[in-house]
This record gives sequence, structure tokens and C-alpha cells, in this order.
Amino acid sequence: MKLRLGKVDKEILEELVFKKLGARRRDIVLGPSFGEDAGVVKSDSRLIVSSCDPITGASERIGWLSVHINANDVAVCGGRPVWFSPIILLSRDADRVELERIVSDIHNACVELGVGVVTGHTEVAPNISHSIVCGFMMGPLVSGKPIRSGGGRPGDLIAMSKTAGIEGTAILARDFKERLKDRVSKEVLEKAERYYEKISVVSEALKLARMGVVTAMHDPTEGGVLGGVYELAEASNTSFIIYEDKIPVSVETRQICNALGCDPLKLISSGVLLACVSKKNMKRIEKLGFNVIGELRERKMPSILMRSDKTEEKITGQVLDELWRIYEES
Amino acid sequence: MKLRLGKVDKEILEELVFKKLGARRRDIVLGPSFGEDAGVVKSDSRLIVSSCDPITGASERIGWLSVHINANDVAVCGGRPVWFSPIILLSRDADRVELERIVSDIHNACVELGVGVVTGHTEVAPNISHSIVCGFMMGPLVSGKPIRSGGGRPGDLIAMSKTAGIEGTAILARDFKERLKDRVSKEVLEKAERYYEKISVVSEALKLARMGVVTAMHDPTEGGVLGGVYELAEASNTSFIIYEDKIPVSVETRQICNALGCDPLKLISSGVLLACVSKKNMKRIEKLGFNVIGELRERKMPSILMRSDKTEEKITGQVLDELWRIYEES
Repeated sequence: MKLRLGKVDKEILEELVFKKLGARRRDIVLGPSFGEDAGVVKSDSRLIVSSCDPITGASERIGWLSVHINANDVAVCGGRPVWFSPIILLSRDADRVELERIVSDIHNACVELGVGVVTGHTEVAPNISHSIVCGFMMGPLVSGKPIRSGGGRPGDLIAMSKTAGIEGTAILARDFKERLKDRVSKEVLEKAERYYEKISVVSEALKLARMGVVTAMHDPTEGGVLGGVYELAEASNTSFIIYEDKIPVSVETRQICNALGCDPLKLISSGVLLACVSKKNMKRIEKLGFNVIGELRERKMPSILMRSDKTEEKITGQVLDELWRIYEES
Repeated sequence: MKLRLGKVDKEILEELVFKKLGARRRDIVLGPSFGEDAGVVKSDSRLIVSSCDPITGASERIGWLSVHINANDVAVCGGRPVWFSPIILLSRDADRVELERIVSDIHNACVELGVGVVTGHTEVAPNISHSIVCGFMMGPLVSGKPIRSGGGRPGDLIAMSKTAGIEGTAILARDFKERLKDRVSKEVLEKAERYYEKISVVSEALKLARMGVVTAMHDPTEGGVLGGVYELAEASNTSFIIYEDKIPVSVETRQICNALGCDPLKLISSGVLLACVSKKNMKRIEKLGFNVIGELRERKMPSILMRSDKTEEKITGQVLDELWRIYEES
């Protein structure tokens, strides 16, 4: 059986991957499980958060993305990202200019965040047709304990920062510029391309981590806001209900998604932070600019996306990112 | 200008990569530089070694290799490898069986070394035709201070463990079985394939690290023993002389290299540990089974590989691995 493009199914991960995790070590405080994008180890008394993620789908700014995506994962777990190590895999078509751009992007993103490069690897790899950056980020825990995707409880409110589909909006504006230019204005496309600048959730995540009011945090990547809520709920062993009309979507995202026929709620959404809080903390999180979009429910209830037209969309499995679908079709 | 396959040239790395390393942080005790395969960070008072390496060239056992290659880099720096995080990038042809094999290989290699998996990422990636595993390994420093490739001094002896071209011998025996089967006996090919089992240098490296007699350690990967000595000498700002007739080459490696017309001294050599010691420590390192193959010299002298027939081969730049050359030609 071939596997589909993108993230591997939860069932396959649980059956094949999560059971085989090497030696059991008590100093691994948070290990791999579905929906958790970071791990935590104990070095003497200090907890260190680490995460790893590749950038494979985007064709531009891959160095810059690899720093921010990994920094996001560390911060969402309650860690301050400080130590980065990149593996740069160049395609055989790559030249010095491409390497230089990737390295500069990594450097600039690291400087923005106060992150230093610890080690790394650069090679021209056989068997790849597009350059890839695999990033690895570490940093000390700043919250009292690790914040997991799986810490949510039924009844908790689900809140999000910013607007749906941030990363995907930037990627689509760049990669489908030709197809979009007759249907979306130049100004909108230019603004959409700059969405890369919104991709970091480090500052909002560390603010929440230090405040100590969240039960769970997660940053939705593939599968968008809907996929991220699904992952958070699965990790927390709950179901969920979210409301389309409570989920903010920007003008740029709306126009680009309409033109390409894709759903912004299922579009890769790095830059958005999902957080769960108990109802009594609703005001505190709204003050920070978060929107409450729904809530976690008992596991026995169905997981539902309530559309604006009041139809209920039942979510029974992982959400395929619209980006993969569009690439497959094009 | 296109870049050549494999490791990127020292000049390019120094010009483009090593100058752009993000924010300067005092807690990065050993950062990236040419020939250093690990970095060291300070977390409170504890030093943590980390390394990252991808497995892109091999078509089998990539999971297993990714653990051992990274464990080697950590151990060679004086760290005990204990925390591993893999990024598994599957090709679009990959199926469950392939994923299962990669994961089992990672698991088994980790268990052998007492390593646990901290976090990770698995996806079916676009743009790759062969699955790739990018590994990240961490562990606490067990030597008094980090052991660098760049710690060697002129006059130090260069010693190596095992025999040249270990990893390459196993890779060639598998990947070129058809071409080799008429010229090399089945027994030799089978024995050569099992060379993967020799690939760990963790035990010998940690022994030397704890003994405290080495000035530098390095594990030669691409470019083989010769490439590894070159990297170590460059990192140490010295030249070197090594003697072909002092470098042990096994029967299996010799036969396979003869059949494919390749030089075992330039063949990818994970499994070999290079170490530098002052002359007074020669006996101690020989007792551990190491062979002295040459010595480091003042930078102003030329770097020389003295062939068995007494011709001198001057080494003036990075060594292209024979493996890449053979893949290019086939």
C-alpha cells in the first residue's frame, strides 16, 4: 500500500512508529506521540525542549521557514528557542546563489529570534529535485512544566491567534502567481506574499506559557486550523466543535482561496497559535487578541466543524492539506 | 556555478555558511566550523553535545545508519549519545513496509546504544525519489572538555581504528551486487554486506574520551580515511603525512574496490575512528588496537599521502568520495 503525500496517517504512526522509540529513558520527560511537535529531556535538573521539522513543500525562503517553524514548535511546548541546527540538502540543480540565499535566510531568522546555530550539515544530495532544509531547534523550558497538545480537557475553550491559512496564503501567492494574476489584484498578491512575516508564534506562545493559564497549545501546520484542532483534540483524547463564522480569515486569504477553489480552514497555517483555556480565563486570552472559535467536548461526541450555513461537517480523521491537493492537481 | 554532488567545498562553506550563524550566544561552546561534526551548548553548568547528519546515499538500512552515524559524531566529540530525533522523508513510492523497516532499524540501533527517541517527523515528501532520514543526536559530555577535530598539533601521531572504507564496502556490496557477482565470491560479498555491523565507533571513542590522551578525534565519512585526515588537519590548521602501507585494508574491501576500480582510502569510512596523540602516548593507543598511520606536520609543509610504491600524492583540497564518482558513472 502506497502512502499519501504529506503527513503520515495517525493510525500508521501509532501502529508503526510510536511503539518503537529506542531505549526507554527516564530523562525523556515528553516523548513522541500524535499531535505533539516537540519533545522534552531532563539534563540534570533542567528541562530542554527540542523539535525537528523539514521544509519540503515550499520553493522559496526554505531556510527562513525552517528556523521559524521549529522555533514555533519549541515555544508552543513552553520552551524558549535558542539553539538551532540545520541540515541543508541541495538538489543537483542548486548553485552558490541558492545556497547563499538559504544560509542568509537561516541567519536572518535566527537573529530575529536571538537563536544561535550550534551545528549543521550541507550537501548536494542525489535523488532530490528541490532543495530541502531539515531543522532542529532546542531551548530551555520557561513554563513551569511542558505544555502539551494533549493537555486539553472537555469544556475547555479553543482560541486562536491571527487568521486562518497564513503560511498557505504566502505559499500560494508565490507558487501560483501566474494562475492568480488575472483573478486577484496585484496589491492583494503582494500583501499575501508578505504573510511569511506573520509566521512566528514565538512571542504569543511564550507570553501564554509564562502566564500559566493554558491547558494545551498547538500550532496548526499541515491541515490548517481544522487539522490543528483535530490534532490537538486527538492528543487530548477529546472531541471538538468549532464554528466557521468565528474563525477569522483575512481578505487576502479569502480571495486567493476563492480563486483556487480551496478551503482556508484546511490550508497550512503556521503563524496561527491554538490554545485551550478553561472558560473562566476567556477574558484574559481575548485581551491578548485571541479569538475563541469553539470548545473541546467529551470523546464520545462527534467532532464537528459548524459551517456558516449551519451545516455540520463531521471530522472523523486527519485533514489533508489543501496545498497538497492543489499541487497534485496542477 | 552548479555545485558538485556530496559534501560542499570547504571554501564555499567558509565563505557562505560559517560566517552566518545567527545570533552570537555565549552558551554555544563549540559552534560550526570546517571538519567539526558536532556542536556543544552549555545548559546551566552542563555541556551537551549535539550532531546532525542525513542519510541520502544509501538505499538500505537508512534508519539504522542515521542513528549510528549521528551517535558516532557525538561520541567523537566526547559526548555519550542518548537522545535521538529523526526526520523521516519518504519518497512517493514508499509503502508501509518501507516505513516499518526504517522505524525498526532506528529502534534497533537506538536500543543497541541505549539511546531514546525524543521527537521526530514523518512525511511523504514531494520532490524526492529515494527515502531520506535526517538524524539529530544529543548527549552529555563525558570527557573533561569537548574533543575537537581541530585540537591536533604538528608532531602528533595520527592513529586509526579498524580498516579503511568500512561503510563504503557494505554500501558497494549491496548496491552493486549485480556488477560484482562475477568478480567477487559470494562469501566475500556476504561478509562485506555485514560491514554495516562495524559502523559504530561509540565504544572506542568514549574509551579514548575518558582516558584523556587524545588531542583530536574525527570519524571519516565522505572522502574516506584520506578525506577524514584532510578534514582533521584542516580543522587543526596543520598539514599531514600518512602512509598507504600503514593503513589497514581488509580483504573484502580490497577485492570489491579492485573490481570496481576505486581507491579504498577515498571510500566513505564510517566505522573508522581517527585520533591524534602525542608521541609519548603511542603505546597506550596501540594497546587499544589502533594503528598509527602517519603524523600531523607544520602547516607550511605539503600534505602528503605516501603511496606503497613510494610516490608522493599531494593533497591540496577536499577528497571526493569514490562512492559519488561510481554513482555518477553508473
